[in-house]
Amino acid sequence: MVELTKKKSPNWKRPVRRSSPEGHGNGPSGHPRKGQHNPGEATETEQPSANFTEDTLKIIPLGGLGEVGKNMSMLQYKDDIIIIDAGLKFPDGSDMPGIDFLLPNVEYLEKYKDKIRGLIFTHGHLDHIGGLPYLQEKLGNPDLYGGALTRGIIAKRHDEFKHLPTLKFNIVKSGDVIQLGDYFKVEFFHVNHNIPDDLALFIETPRGTVVHTADFKFDHSPTSGQPIDIEHLRGLGDRGVSVLMSDSTGAEREGHSISESAIKENLDLIFQESKQMIICSTFASLIDRIQQVIELSEKHGRKIIFDGYSMKSNIEIARELGYIKIQKGTQINMEQVDDYPRSQITVMATGAQGQSNASLMRIANREHRHIQLQKKDAVIFSSSAIPGNERTVQNLKDMFYRAGVKVYHYQMMDIHAGGHAQKEDLGHMIELMRPKFLMPIHGQYSMMVSHSELGQAKGIPEENVIIADNGSVIHIEDPHPINRNGTDTARWWMDQKTVPSGYIMVDGLGVGDIGNVVLRDRQVLAEDGMIVLVTLIDAKTGKVLRSPDIISRGFIYLKENKDFMTEIRKRIRFIVEKSAGPQVNTTYIKDNLREEIGKFLFQKTERRPMVLPVVIEI
Amino acid sequence: MVELTKKKSPNWKRPVRRSSPEGHGNGPSGHPRKGQHNPGEATETEQPSANFTEDTLKIIPLGGLGEVGKNMSMLQYKDDIIIIDAGLKFPDGSDMPGIDFLLPNVEYLEKYKDKIRGLIFTHGHLDHIGGLPYLQEKLGNPDLYGGALTRGIIAKRHDEFKHLPTLKFNIVKSGDVIQLGDYFKVEFFHVNHNIPDDLALFIETPRGTVVHTADFKFDHSPTSGQPIDIEHLRGLGDRGVSVLMSDSTGAEREGHSISESAIKENLDLIFQESKQMIICSTFASLIDRIQQVIELSEKHGRKIIFDGYSMKSNIEIARELGYIKIQKGTQINMEQVDDYPRSQITVMATGAQGQSNASLMRIANREHRHIQLQKKDAVIFSSSAIPGNERTVQNLKDMFYRAGVKVYHYQMMDIHAGGHAQKEDLGHMIELMRPKFLMPIHGQYSMMVSHSELGQAKGIPEENVIIADNGSVIHIEDPHPINRNGTDTARWWMDQKTVPSGYIMVDGLGVGDIGNVVLRDRQVLAEDGMIVLVTLIDAKTGKVLRSPDIISRGFIYLKENKDFMTEIRKRIRFIVEKSAGPQVNTTYIKDNLREEIGKFLFQKTERRPMVLPVVIEI
Repeated sequence: MVELTKKKSPNWKRPVRRSSPEGHGNGPSGHPRKGQHNPGEATETEQPSANFTEDTLKIIPLGGLGEVGKNMSMLQYKDDIIIIDAGLKFPDGSDMPGIDFLLPNVEYLEKYKDKIRGLIFTHGHLDHIGGLPYLQEKLGNPDLYGGALTRGIIAKRHDEFKHLPTLKFNIVKSGDVIQLGDYFKVEFFHVNHNIPDDLALFIETPRGTVVHTADFKFDHSPTSGQPIDIEHLRGLGDRGVSVLMSDSTGAEREGHSISESAIKENLDLIFQESKQMIICSTFASLIDRIQQVIELSEKHGRKIIFDGYSMKSNIEIARELGYIKIQKGTQINMEQVDDYPRSQITVMATGAQGQSNASLMRIANREHRHIQLQKKDAVIFSSSAIPGNERTVQNLKDMFYRAGVKVYHYQMMDIHAGGHAQKEDLGHMIELMRPKFLMPIHGQYSMMVSHSELGQAKGIPEENVIIADNGSVIHIEDPHPINRNGTDTARWWMDQKTVPSGYIMVDGLGVGDIGNVVLRDRQVLAEDGMIVLVTLIDAKTGKVLRSPDIISRGFIYLKENKDFMTEIRKRIRFIVEKSAGPQVNTTYIKDNLREEIGKFLFQKTERRPMVLPVVIEI
Repeated sequence: MVELTKKKSPNWKRPVRRSSPEGHGNGPSGHPRKGQHNPGEATETEQPSANFTEDTLKIIPLGGLGEVGKNMSMLQYKDDIIIIDAGLKFPDGSDMPGIDFLLPNVEYLEKYKDKIRGLIFTHGHLDHIGGLPYLQEKLGNPDLYGGALTRGIIAKRHDEFKHLPTLKFNIVKSGDVIQLGDYFKVEFFHVNHNIPDDLALFIETPRGTVVHTADFKFDHSPTSGQPIDIEHLRGLGDRGVSVLMSDSTGAEREGHSISESAIKENLDLIFQESKQMIICSTFASLIDRIQQVIELSEKHGRKIIFDGYSMKSNIEIARELGYIKIQKGTQINMEQVDDYPRSQITVMATGAQGQSNASLMRIANREHRHIQLQKKDAVIFSSSAIPGNERTVQNLKDMFYRAGVKVYHYQMMDIHAGGHAQKEDLGHMIELMRPKFLMPIHGQYSMMVSHSELGQAKGIPEENVIIADNGSVIHIEDPHPINRNGTDTARWWMDQKTVPSGYIMVDGLGVGDIGNVVLRDRQVLAEDGMIVLVTLIDAKTGKVLRSPDIISRGFIYLKENKDFMTEIRKRIRFIVEKSAGPQVNTTYIKDNLREEIGKFLFQKTERRPMVLPVVIEI
């Protein structure tokens, strides 16, 4: 009970969506919300004072809210901080040309890295682990926790970053309980997903108990591992849950997600039908699906070839740990493809998203060194198209159709299931946990809102749903979650200020060095190209000394536009000499060139190439 | 019967997908097939000899096969040519940066424009009419035919192209029969779509009868116009159909398409629920949907405001023709928005695809001059996301969710129906027409294949399905379609050669002037930007005369990388002076700079900006 009255929530706020009376979409902080519409807008200017004596549990999501990807959250109580996940996200190509991926902003954590007691990985997918190599040092190389497979995948990736310090990884499993710092007791429990070793968290703190579901679904007949232990989860719920941080990715989909066993049955039908080579493609990290294809190949007397670096590497790790089981002699090398009849070969390939250099695209393009498509081969897309990739995937499929092969994809039959709980399952999780507060995480804003509506339908009052944003600082005060009947003083509020939460762009070796300006320039260059005007002038008289050089890329094909070039040169000379006063001012000349040549080009072409004048005084 | 034996199909080929024994996806022509994967690859080198004495009916699709958009086909018999539609297509932004849209290649038609007897428009959507302003003159300003609304939309658009000759438009309606040239008798018949005046074609020629379905669906309770007259269609089928050219867009979707009446009922539910402003967005050309929203607004006592240029302009045309009916006093101007309670306002806005400058985005962005969102407003997306726009539409929806408004979209409930017949309906059309040959048109390759399978399920033998490509030259020989029992000599084959069929890119005022090189440069520039190295050298000695100028955009932020700049300058000097032999060769120097500086930049950044060296001899 201690100081409950003292903390009478001076800045108590209702959840975001509802807090702003005009509905103007500002968060409770009053700051405009950040979304993908502010690319490169990386940080807030003000930061909350990091008060390490406050007697509340703070939850600060740093990524994965209002978006799908780069999942990362932190919990803080007094001067103990724990982190959950550190993912990356692939950007939308057209918005962020050239950017390899995005990371969560960890500026706040960087400042207080000495207080980090551990970084927990829920599972081994890139949107949960991919940020680590870029953040490990910034976070002070913290102790890491996660399942065996998760460790394997992280360690393998770590090998590619030679300069980084050794990982301090601690393998945990379902049922384990660890103490992090003075205040965090973390209990791991098994949930289903589409990769083994997916662990959800039951976190006890002095000011409340938090359940973090990880990415999850209920699979009552998974192809690997056990179903979720419903009674165990109910038991956790019985111990009292202050906040349920739950995966929202599937919150807009009706019903239950499909079991992996159902997927396997459908894949089996394809194996029964196919009399030629089967080429099956899925995400390299979908270990469970890969296991299914192995089993089906064995059942139908097929050898299997794995193609694609990431798939091979994941399989190697999963095999060592016993998560992938394959009979001796089933796997053959690509070089042996012609040693067997086509009817006895399965190729498991990467590239179902239409990635231009992946195995599947090379097969479709007829650029693959070993595999030539033949009529009646079967190509299976056992994955959905990630939003933004739809056109590319359609084009890839069409290439296979043109080759006369039989194409199977998830829109035709259930040969792919998402890894995320859908509406019914999310409701079930809420029922099992009976949390005081529901905090939707992992998903677009619309998914979080849909999750909130589900929660309300399950009896959680609207004001007990925490719709937050990356960077929000949420205070929880619920010291007695197990026995709050009658004297329920549990409450939550959000700080006015947020911690830095924009994304960090990674391009090549550069982490965070690409900002708004560079990105905007890329967009302009992509749109209409550019033109460089090189002019030599007499420093004394301002006269143009020789015919200006013009270099252009992505604008028009200059060789076919000689008259146009001549006209541009004439104008350059005119503009330069008009601009040169008694004293030559190259900045002024350049400004005039940029503006007037730009105008002229637009008039003639309705295009706006970037105009770059170079004026050299001799 | 005439010359049937003479024409014993010397180059008879079975349909594309099946013709290549290795399944290697080359068409019957032996040429590699063109798809979206060969951007800018605009023309074939060889062209079929245009034999105007051949006694076969030729069908040459020029656009819309293997793609969704830029629909255009031509039919030729002896020296009469007729054209069906002349559409455009919007490119995928990331593949073709800066390109406004794509047109079909009409090189073949241009050569024989004196033989064009008419250009028929099936309906007024841009993917069927949008190419006209760019093709009108190339086609010799032919006679145009189409419904009244189609004419209205075309004429309105024509006004924006001041330099073009007057349109020679002939309005036709369902039931009309026109004779084009000596050989083409075209009978128009009504089908449903989601714009009024959609006309399908029954075309009789000396060598066969072709039915072109236009874009269509069966709607037994359309909100405007009549349902398809099933008995009339059956009657057409009775007259004998050689080739059914049928819309494939919906061929991968199960069942029947949803009736517009069902959509209206669902929209009505939203109107009943909503107590604040309703903002409804759909395609500006979805005249039937707009009419529904008008009727619902009137039913629920709301005024309606139309926002967005294209929508206003379409409504004006449709209203003049009586296709949009609106009571006096229902429509108000945007300026009057505050004169009524919010509960009495419907705003009909453009921009449901997330277009950055459209009305809906400005409302979401809070940049709209007149409309400020309030909590509990309703925003309706009565349209699906066009493939490629999914992320943008999701982000737009999220902006509304953040504002606390109620969002309704087609994934939640049936408030949008496609305009295209789905599997059951396509099968029904085949049953009604009982064609000898089925030719799937309008759709991605996968959709055409799916349509082919439907046809086979309806009893059309595989070899009677014509899976063609843009540019394919298909010969039809079926002089007696009505009475071919017993002595059925009908046949089809495809020429070895194709006519030019790649797409033409439009960018600003340039039509077809952007080729592979310019496009590839734009992609490179977008990816990693560029860097210009300006070096002055002594023409005699090859010495660098002063510190080189470096200009860079989209690569790194130079101001923050002074040391790096210094290093680059040092290397430029070194490379130039190393490259300068007894005689200064600037081409050689530039090549060295490009290569070595490029390598250096990659080493330091893992980025590959375009390196543009400028070497000036003094």
